[in-house]
Amino acid sequence: MTESVLDYMTRLGREARSASRVVARASTAQKNRALLAAAAALDAARQTLTEANEQDLAKGRANGLEPALLDRLALTPARIDGMIEGLRQVAGLPDPVGAIRDMSYRPSGIQVGKMRVPLGVIGIIYESRPNVTIDAASLCLKSGNATILRGGSEAIHSNRAIATCIQAGLAEAGLPAAAVQVVETTDRAAVGALISMPEFVDVIVPRGGKGLIERISRDARVPVIKHLDGICHVYVAAGADLAKAQQIAFNAKTYRYGICGAMETLLVDKTVAAEFLPAMAEQFRAKGVELRGCPRTLEVIEAVAATEQDWNSEYLDAILSIRVVDGLEQAIEHINHYGSHHTDSIVTEHQGQARQFLAEVDSSSVMLNTPTCFADGFEYGLGAEIGISTDKLHARGPVGLEGLTCEKYVVIGDGQLRGQNA
Amino acid sequence: MTESVLDYMTRLGREARSASRVVARASTAQKNRALLAAAAALDAARQTLTEANEQDLAKGRANGLEPALLDRLALTPARIDGMIEGLRQVAGLPDPVGAIRDMSYRPSGIQVGKMRVPLGVIGIIYESRPNVTIDAASLCLKSGNATILRGGSEAIHSNRAIATCIQAGLAEAGLPAAAVQVVETTDRAAVGALISMPEFVDVIVPRGGKGLIERISRDARVPVIKHLDGICHVYVAAGADLAKAQQIAFNAKTYRYGICGAMETLLVDKTVAAEFLPAMAEQFRAKGVELRGCPRTLEVIEAVAATEQDWNSEYLDAILSIRVVDGLEQAIEHINHYGSHHTDSIVTEHQGQARQFLAEVDSSSVMLNTPTCFADGFEYGLGAEIGISTDKLHARGPVGLEGLTCEKYVVIGDGQLRGQNA
Repeated sequence: MTESVLDYMTRLGREARSASRVVARASTAQKNRALLAAAAALDAARQTLTEANEQDLAKGRANGLEPALLDRLALTPARIDGMIEGLRQVAGLPDPVGAIRDMSYRPSGIQVGKMRVPLGVIGIIYESRPNVTIDAASLCLKSGNATILRGGSEAIHSNRAIATCIQAGLAEAGLPAAAVQVVETTDRAAVGALISMPEFVDVIVPRGGKGLIERISRDARVPVIKHLDGICHVYVAAGADLAKAQQIAFNAKTYRYGICGAMETLLVDKTVAAEFLPAMAEQFRAKGVELRGCPRTLEVIEAVAATEQDWNSEYLDAILSIRVVDGLEQAIEHINHYGSHHTDSIVTEHQGQARQFLAEVDSSSVMLNTPTCFADGFEYGLGAEIGISTDKLHARGPVGLEGLTCEKYVVIGDGQLRGQNA
Repeated sequence: MTESVLDYMTRLGREARSASRVVARASTAQKNRALLAAAAALDAARQTLTEANEQDLAKGRANGLEPALLDRLALTPARIDGMIEGLRQVAGLPDPVGAIRDMSYRPSGIQVGKMRVPLGVIGIIYESRPNVTIDAASLCLKSGNATILRGGSEAIHSNRAIATCIQAGLAEAGLPAAAVQVVETTDRAAVGALISMPEFVDVIVPRGGKGLIERISRDARVPVIKHLDGICHVYVAAGADLAKAQQIAFNAKTYRYGICGAMETLLVDKTVAAEFLPAMAEQFRAKGVELRGCPRTLEVIEAVAATEQDWNSEYLDAILSIRVVDGLEQAIEHINHYGSHHTDSIVTEHQGQARQFLAEVDSSSVMLNTPTCFADGFEYGLGAEIGISTDKLHARGPVGLEGLTCEKYVVIGDGQLRGQNA
């Protein structure tokens, strides 16, 4: 590359901005044609994809990449199937763009409503998993946005091979190539440039470890839709059906330890602790989950003594902290203080308790009699998700097509003038 | 004050965060009682308010404050009436908090929907007009948020007197005093502290000149809902009713020169320019509006030659730039390139032209046959506005109660488990 990284990124940005105007007015049929053609191109390119991925894997092994990272990097046949299926699913989702709501007459005679429109240009910064390239590109395209994708350098060959298939899809539908651009350089300065071009990029979505996300949020001059911790709670209230509570808590912890919606702390009302905890603890222990309890928990079951640090921890592992609380108020206080405003659930059959918990817990998802591991775009019916936002402004919780759009006001008159009408 | 400004602001922040939990769960009746009691307190305190304001005005005159600023600072009897009426109007608005929408069953058996909730703590930074204290406090309170208000030092006595009335209202309704706090120090470091406490403040709304807003946006570590330029356009299209177009354009420019929704550039389709512009220009000239035109405009009417700078200018004055364009596409390009994404209007009777303009102009308000000066929270039916956002994320356009809230997911199950249901 003879141009500087900054010049290169500026060129990508300018082309993305220009392409975004075309994608924004593309018809649903045209966008779907591009998605389905990209799916067909992936299907036809399995051999090429596998070879490109082999290059990345070989380099990763040579560089001593951890097994977990190598696993995320691998494009297995099943994962290629998953990408193809994902594209088809996104093609099948309703198109949010252009929907008009709440159009009503005002006393002046004008009509005012809101129209849903794309955000413009979305920058995605992600780590090793190459299938994110397809997830992100498809959601952004369907929602009428242009995308600049900056994957990890360890996946560069895989990402380029996937990008070729996306380009084939765009070409087939007559959409501009710059609608989806993969950053071709592995120079880290590219990230710095991408997050500093508000004139070309409307929002950044970082996907990866907390370190990456914090760094980007701190340095960005463009708005960031971000996901930080998932310190999720289940509170077994005084009004709980304890058999149901045990199933819910077990599922919330053990469905998958590594997902952000996994329960990390179990709160138990003092009125039910003695009855509930022994059987619960036995089930967790049989599964190999390490338990860490507050002093009142340790009166009822055997466990490691929990420290202040435990209430602040996202283990993402087979570890669970347990606290016995005095009641609903203390449970809500604990969650709002120690939690990460992600997903928290109450187990109760008592309507008043449920109503208060759902209203007062300040999290992106509040749940009743539901395991926290349900916090997921597919389970919520979004069709797919580009991430789960723990921010309050704009998107909160799982972010699907709607989170990649905004609303503008539409005002229709017929010559009404201000200051001259009733 | 013996504590440092930073300690003082941290204390305000902590108290606001704590109060926000109480305000968030306050009933609509309780919030309305506080608003109406504050209105009654203002009405009873007219004498005190006037005296406090006199202190600010005297100091302002002594410091050589410009007449325009002195005018904004003045709390006339009419403005006190306006504040009282504003509080009553906000009390009459529907309460957005707690509304649940789109609750639907998912294949797993869980129900998923969204609940509207307050943002938490809102920091308002504003300049001389003391009535903003009431506008901001009432909207934030009604939407269930705690507020920290930082007005200009030139209005400190007026703001304190108004704050006393708000405190009376909060006390009457049994709400915590920290639900609305006025920063008592005029030290500029207070602003720096307020915009750097994401743990205590959820969003900042700056109101004032562009310099203030740019500075705050650049330095804030908290999200900012901001309003920058209002470079608004009216495009008289080929399909326009020219008599209607003339009325709309005249109203858009002359309703008030100083509002952000005032038209700054008039775009005229080349097919109608020769017929439309002479009478239009005559009406503007009679009103004393200076006209600056592109070369094709100057072929039809007399005007100053417009420069590139004119297309980028928010005059806020009796000046109008005029450009003749080749058609709809060029009009949209001009607006998206030179405009400020605020409010832009097309005048046409042609459905296809209207549809394309409304879809493709990337502004917070897009209008058809309506003067741009209608861009206003009251006119849109929001009841009141805390500002007009030119951002795309979160709130876009006039920001009322809804813009001071967000939505969280509510998930209701009855023991459904993930990975074990259809």
